[in-house]
Amino acid sequence: MIEQRHLDFITNIVGSENIKSDKAHLIAYSYDATKTRFEPDAVVFPRHEEDISQILKYCNEHEVVIVPRGAGSGFTGGALPANGGISLSLERHMDKLLEIDMENMVGVVQPGLINMDFQKAVEAVGLFYPPDPASENYSTLGGNVSENAGGMRAAKYGITKDYVMALRAVLPNGDIIKAGKKTIKDVAGYNTAGILIASEGTLAVITEITLKLIPKPRHKKTYMGIFPSVENAMNAVFKSLAKGANPVAMEFLDSLVIKALRDKLNVDLPEEAGAILIGDVDGNLEDEVIFQLDTLKESFLENGSTDFIIAENEEEGNKLWFARRNASPAVTIYGTKKLNEDISVPRSKLPEALAGIYEIGEKYGFQVPCFGHAGDGNIHVNVMVKDKDNEKEMEDGHKAIEDIFQFVVDMGGTLSGEHGIGTSKAPFMSIAFNDEEMNLFRSIKKAFDPKNILNPNKMGL
Amino acid sequence: MIEQRHLDFITNIVGSENIKSDKAHLIAYSYDATKTRFEPDAVVFPRHEEDISQILKYCNEHEVVIVPRGAGSGFTGGALPANGGISLSLERHMDKLLEIDMENMVGVVQPGLINMDFQKAVEAVGLFYPPDPASENYSTLGGNVSENAGGMRAAKYGITKDYVMALRAVLPNGDIIKAGKKTIKDVAGYNTAGILIASEGTLAVITEITLKLIPKPRHKKTYMGIFPSVENAMNAVFKSLAKGANPVAMEFLDSLVIKALRDKLNVDLPEEAGAILIGDVDGNLEDEVIFQLDTLKESFLENGSTDFIIAENEEEGNKLWFARRNASPAVTIYGTKKLNEDISVPRSKLPEALAGIYEIGEKYGFQVPCFGHAGDGNIHVNVMVKDKDNEKEMEDGHKAIEDIFQFVVDMGGTLSGEHGIGTSKAPFMSIAFNDEEMNLFRSIKKAFDPKNILNPNKMGL
Repeated sequence: MIEQRHLDFITNIVGSENIKSDKAHLIAYSYDATKTRFEPDAVVFPRHEEDISQILKYCNEHEVVIVPRGAGSGFTGGALPANGGISLSLERHMDKLLEIDMENMVGVVQPGLINMDFQKAVEAVGLFYPPDPASENYSTLGGNVSENAGGMRAAKYGITKDYVMALRAVLPNGDIIKAGKKTIKDVAGYNTAGILIASEGTLAVITEITLKLIPKPRHKKTYMGIFPSVENAMNAVFKSLAKGANPVAMEFLDSLVIKALRDKLNVDLPEEAGAILIGDVDGNLEDEVIFQLDTLKESFLENGSTDFIIAENEEEGNKLWFARRNASPAVTIYGTKKLNEDISVPRSKLPEALAGIYEIGEKYGFQVPCFGHAGDGNIHVNVMVKDKDNEKEMEDGHKAIEDIFQFVVDMGGTLSGEHGIGTSKAPFMSIAFNDEEMNLFRSIKKAFDPKNILNPNKMGL
Repeated sequence: MIEQRHLDFITNIVGSENIKSDKAHLIAYSYDATKTRFEPDAVVFPRHEEDISQILKYCNEHEVVIVPRGAGSGFTGGALPANGGISLSLERHMDKLLEIDMENMVGVVQPGLINMDFQKAVEAVGLFYPPDPASENYSTLGGNVSENAGGMRAAKYGITKDYVMALRAVLPNGDIIKAGKKTIKDVAGYNTAGILIASEGTLAVITEITLKLIPKPRHKKTYMGIFPSVENAMNAVFKSLAKGANPVAMEFLDSLVIKALRDKLNVDLPEEAGAILIGDVDGNLEDEVIFQLDTLKESFLENGSTDFIIAENEEEGNKLWFARRNASPAVTIYGTKKLNEDISVPRSKLPEALAGIYEIGEKYGFQVPCFGHAGDGNIHVNVMVKDKDNEKEMEDGHKAIEDIFQFVVDMGGTLSGEHGIGTSKAPFMSIAFNDEEMNLFRSIKKAFDPKNILNPNKMGL
């Protein structure tokens, strides 16, 4: 438990209205999307960068643990105070859109701004911020940067790190630093912004983010390809892209997901479909959109697709997207507990990866519905535990997950495409990294946070 | 001077044919494009990663300085042994193209491979590696990564860091690490590759590079816009881009450069031109190329351009590009010494930046011809010293450069868009970074290289 004198000191900085340690607040800030719970000792809502600097300086001197938190929508416990300490919430005061610089196509935001609020603001002036994690309606941009969030549009437009031009941040000792600039090229000094991205709040507290924007594409269409098997679909993914197709998104549903959507939500999908690919194509010219659709259609047919549907308008497009958007809730028909992981492999390995994952599922007797961002090689794998109160079954589920990680890493894939490591994937770090790499991570952590006060014991460090 | 026993040990590792300490070699490896000279104590040509690991482990134990070197084409002394030590040359043996993975659109190379050799190899199979530093015909990809090289095509396609998917590297203690994967998404562990890029060989020796490739665009055209003044041209740059133009390149020549090209090389450019923009547009469809040209033409006219030329074919395009390609040699008519810097500003600041730079030149009595990558805000500024043997004039030249850096940083720009810091820009680091940021850089350096054996005393560290 944190000492009262520390809380008093922080209260003097932020004011009593911005520090809470009543039970209701401690519970409210104890969870994220992992559904595990760790209560903080207190929740602090800094008003601005200067508050954060003072708090960190003090906490560093007194070795008080600080865990930065955005919306708490993470899937791996990154924002959870797994060892107690202060939950530093950026969502209450530090949620401003500071600037949309149209001349340079750049947005400047505070970390607590919600992704979708930013998307809407920039689209209102004809610009576009592509990273669209599934949590876009509630996750914060600070959280997105800290986890290097991906999304559906990564196939064409890349991920969060591709849009971060500059960061302001407070180091554990209270020092305020800038990293990067509003310039496209900048090679002076170490790329500090590069290492802060995806560092899961373990190196510094991000206080301002400068994001690259692009002109909003003028035309967009939604497509859907129906395939007899997962293997057909997975071949179509990497072969169509290697042929020059450049869809905004290329999302995948397997036959278990299709069945769940039909059975649970009455979604009108062909019963015989073994797999579906769905996505958008866009462009500045209608001809470009048509060219993309033609390229996809041709390549899908070459890889065995039985139907290629093009939505005539936005409403039809939304109908097609409904299936993908409801994949996650639909698959709950297969069990009471979903062990979901977001593996990522080089795209050409997708057929082999999916085949192997189903095989591991079978070995342990699990159904493993899979869906996700096939266009960039990132698949959400769901090991469905029928009875979560059955200890043996849960244990087998975790074994299956471990087998999947080992299998995926062996083929050049990664433990996580989007969700990060946090606490929940920490036990698997040794599958992906050797001792030398883990030692380097620890040295980097120490360079930023020698007293280990900032979000300690995450990422297997 | 390095002790003989150290040289003997390294000779045992690499063989006597791969270590040289005769005067001819020491001189040959003492320079780069800065034309300053620092002789190494010996030049070593490692055969493979394992050699490098053994050499670094030994040198770390015995505190022998190692300076990695590619082609030695850098502009800031990054590859020079400014404090002696061993020059570790990656060009002789570690120059292989290891793989072109067409299915995943990825290339895997050794650091000594020359940029253009890689470009040619991937274009031969229909793929494209966009980063094209002016040194592309001789600079190595390892050097490109270490300096985060830019180039002409950065306006549309970004810079080296946008293409690095993964690195293998040897740490100063000899540990071999992998950073990143052949996957588009990967958020497991710290983004070590991100911090190695642009680290100027001060953190690790890069031994293998995995680079993203894209399909080669099918159509390309070259354009040239003539403007009455630099201000008109600079306004046209950021306004056309904000309007949705997306040229591959948008290069700039000012009136002094135009005059030099006419006078020295008889290039056929209009005498009255106050500035020129030149570049390519590309696309998968001819219509896309036409759309881009139309957008540029309209926007250029709105900003006062007096002529917009479109090359009908590649030969005509090469004629237009001849002017840009010869800007650097042409401006030597203005003096015996060219103090050239590569500042970078947010694009909307280009008109103000250029006006201020000319004013600083006037204050000290220098002509300052400017050219470069206006499309991404990166300008090559040349303070022309008439008589390099005139001490007072040289001193004034350096003062002018310092004034320019201060002015550029004050408007949100950077010391270097492409060339890095090395030794030559090290004195200016305090203009761009505060003490806290410099301390952080030192901590990062120490995390990787606690004994400071790898390319020490660079970047103002």
